[in-house]
Amino acid sequence: MPDKTTLQTLSAAVEANFDEQVRFLADIVRHPSLRGREAPLQDHMYRWFAGRGFGYTVDRFSIADVRWQDHPKASPMVDVDPAGSFQVVASKRCAAPTGRSLIIQGHIDVVPEGPAEMWTYPPYGGTVKDGWMYGRGAHDMKSGVSAMCFAMEALRTAGFAPAADVFLQTVTEEESTGNGALATLLRGYRADACLIPEPTGGTITRAHTGTLWFRIKVRGVPVHVAVAQSGSNAIMSGYHLIQALQEHTRELNRAAREDQWYSGLQDPIKFNPGIIRGGDWASSTPAWCEIDCRIGLLPGQDVAAQQRAVEKAVAAAAKTDNFLANNPPEVQWHGFLADGYVLEPGSEAEAVLAEAHRAAFGAEMPARITTAVNDTRFYGLYFDMPALCYGPKGEGAHAFDERTHLEHLKTTTLAMAAFIADWCGLKALE
Amino acid sequence: MPDKTTLQTLSAAVEANFDEQVRFLADIVRHPSLRGREAPLQDHMYRWFAGRGFGYTVDRFSIADVRWQDHPKASPMVDVDPAGSFQVVASKRCAAPTGRSLIIQGHIDVVPEGPAEMWTYPPYGGTVKDGWMYGRGAHDMKSGVSAMCFAMEALRTAGFAPAADVFLQTVTEEESTGNGALATLLRGYRADACLIPEPTGGTITRAHTGTLWFRIKVRGVPVHVAVAQSGSNAIMSGYHLIQALQEHTRELNRAAREDQWYSGLQDPIKFNPGIIRGGDWASSTPAWCEIDCRIGLLPGQDVAAQQRAVEKAVAAAAKTDNFLANNPPEVQWHGFLADGYVLEPGSEAEAVLAEAHRAAFGAEMPARITTAVNDTRFYGLYFDMPALCYGPKGEGAHAFDERTHLEHLKTTTLAMAAFIADWCGLKALE
Repeated sequence: MPDKTTLQTLSAAVEANFDEQVRFLADIVRHPSLRGREAPLQDHMYRWFAGRGFGYTVDRFSIADVRWQDHPKASPMVDVDPAGSFQVVASKRCAAPTGRSLIIQGHIDVVPEGPAEMWTYPPYGGTVKDGWMYGRGAHDMKSGVSAMCFAMEALRTAGFAPAADVFLQTVTEEESTGNGALATLLRGYRADACLIPEPTGGTITRAHTGTLWFRIKVRGVPVHVAVAQSGSNAIMSGYHLIQALQEHTRELNRAAREDQWYSGLQDPIKFNPGIIRGGDWASSTPAWCEIDCRIGLLPGQDVAAQQRAVEKAVAAAAKTDNFLANNPPEVQWHGFLADGYVLEPGSEAEAVLAEAHRAAFGAEMPARITTAVNDTRFYGLYFDMPALCYGPKGEGAHAFDERTHLEHLKTTTLAMAAFIADWCGLKALE
Repeated sequence: MPDKTTLQTLSAAVEANFDEQVRFLADIVRHPSLRGREAPLQDHMYRWFAGRGFGYTVDRFSIADVRWQDHPKASPMVDVDPAGSFQVVASKRCAAPTGRSLIIQGHIDVVPEGPAEMWTYPPYGGTVKDGWMYGRGAHDMKSGVSAMCFAMEALRTAGFAPAADVFLQTVTEEESTGNGALATLLRGYRADACLIPEPTGGTITRAHTGTLWFRIKVRGVPVHVAVAQSGSNAIMSGYHLIQALQEHTRELNRAAREDQWYSGLQDPIKFNPGIIRGGDWASSTPAWCEIDCRIGLLPGQDVAAQQRAVEKAVAAAAKTDNFLANNPPEVQWHGFLADGYVLEPGSEAEAVLAEAHRAAFGAEMPARITTAVNDTRFYGLYFDMPALCYGPKGEGAHAFDERTHLEHLKTTTLAMAAFIADWCGLKALE
């Protein structure tokens, strides 16, 4: 960890900049960067990095600018245009590096806020109340984006620059495919380690599950309800398939009890029917129903094998439904085909981060096992660099009244500054 | 019935005009007069009547032009503007009437066509193949609209005019509220009888069930699926309520076994969850779900009592769902609040129609008991005029490949011309 004086200097710098950091965070929370609509916020990030005066070289490119579809770990993009999905990489290069290079990456896409009337504060307001900032993305993970930007700002304020290349990246598609992270790697960005400041509440992510997205499409034969017994109700057939997938999930969770990392969690495989659409008219038996689903898989489980298992469960259920037996439902893979990932204990990067955490928080850095996916898999599994998922504390990811704890965010920002200082080394700002 | 010579003259006129009638029908089928978008077809009808040269006085007005909301049998209009929902009444008045006046009414609204790829012929194409015309509304009930228009045309071609006032009406909202029919009555139109040429396949409708429309609104607490056990899945809660309403329907059908008119039908009360929408994101537990439903009621059953029974069934089911118990679902009455109706046997109007049917088809006119609603209830129950529901033959109401049988349509047109001739009397065209 940095020496005590350096740490105090960095701490003072984080403190001095924190009002600006909170304003920065509120500003990016006020950008409703929903999937397919992230570009204005990426424009904002581009301008912000370029205007810092810290010598960032800023690269802004879309997923369509790289050959993403050729990569075996790309996920299908449906209902969204890769050419409109921009990534931003701000490179702070070191002329004569003496330390280890670092990628710090945060996603700026957010999930839909749901019915606005169920929020206490406006979902894109960035309201601060009693030490928390509220808003969709305030926690997942614009808080972390602010931490990475202002960890670097702390160095600058303290009169330092990293003694190795640092690449700050804001990406899209973390919530749906991971293709934003993949695009930065396909663009060629590499480093000796990667830190993703997802809001882990100051824990290091030891393992995350993978995620599959699929859309079930049921077609029925609509008739006037007056003769409903001769028609098929696609909505009810959809429900039949959901029940079958719930049973499939129970089987997967029974098997998960033997897993090295997940045996301690109850039902780590989560199945979620997240969106449903079906039918056109109250008085017509519905002709169609589509259900967008998400299911998890354990680290080490094969994505393709789990896809086939879902398809098999759906096909088996269809055989027990009079209508579906003759009109097989379609399973479309419309997003995440994501592996799980384990950050094997013992890496140098993790040790340095643990030191930095201890320096900032005065406590050990706990590990967590999560049932949600994150982007570290790309760096850790496919591009052979240690990938740390560690960041600030908050509540309500994907929920109403999502919020981040500002005091914790400040300390996390210091921990990240200390990590950069140790991993990359410091040199005096020119 | 008309004397043999008159009948032959009318038959020849129907035959002579039939190519034009088929073109007329194809033309109106090609107007996609879905709910809220009927106005262009009503404009077309307005022009058609006005341009006939048969002395029609044409009145075009919207539901908002009458005090519809004050009427106890108006149904709520949700998601559609009454001011944009136009009715057309073409009045063929008789200077010195000697016969009985008549309203002939047809609805021109159609239900959604569903996925177009499931149609053999384009849903708004009006394709004729092997003696059938295909298209959404070709059967329900633009065929009947063509029959009423060309029954009157047959009189004109044969050199006659009705010897009493005849009001041809094209209305909207038959498929959702009935407020179009109600608006014509509130506008003041009355007659000694009403004929609605719904596609009954040459049967007289003895009884129809009523219909209630309601929207169930479920609100849930979304969370990241990683912690799905702490959230509520609004889609699954929605299905829980559907199942409860299916059970409620079974109870209603048990009681229906004692009904005077419906005891012979198996399960005459139809419940249909027709539209479902819910959730925003595959990886968020859905925060909301809305289900648009339709349920029937028997003639004589009280609409308000059946509404309360639905609400009670939903509330009882909500109590057995952990989430819904604390977040009661909402039931919104968003359309039909329609009584059932029985055309009591023995009316003079029905006897005259039966004669006309026999003259045209050479067979008795059977009666049918239907589990679908139609507009006759307004005339028969609330405005005290005999209301006959009788019309052409077809298939696939509310379904794919909806079609009308053209030869049957021609004969039905003759039967209707004969009915007008007998009910209203004839006089020579001036």
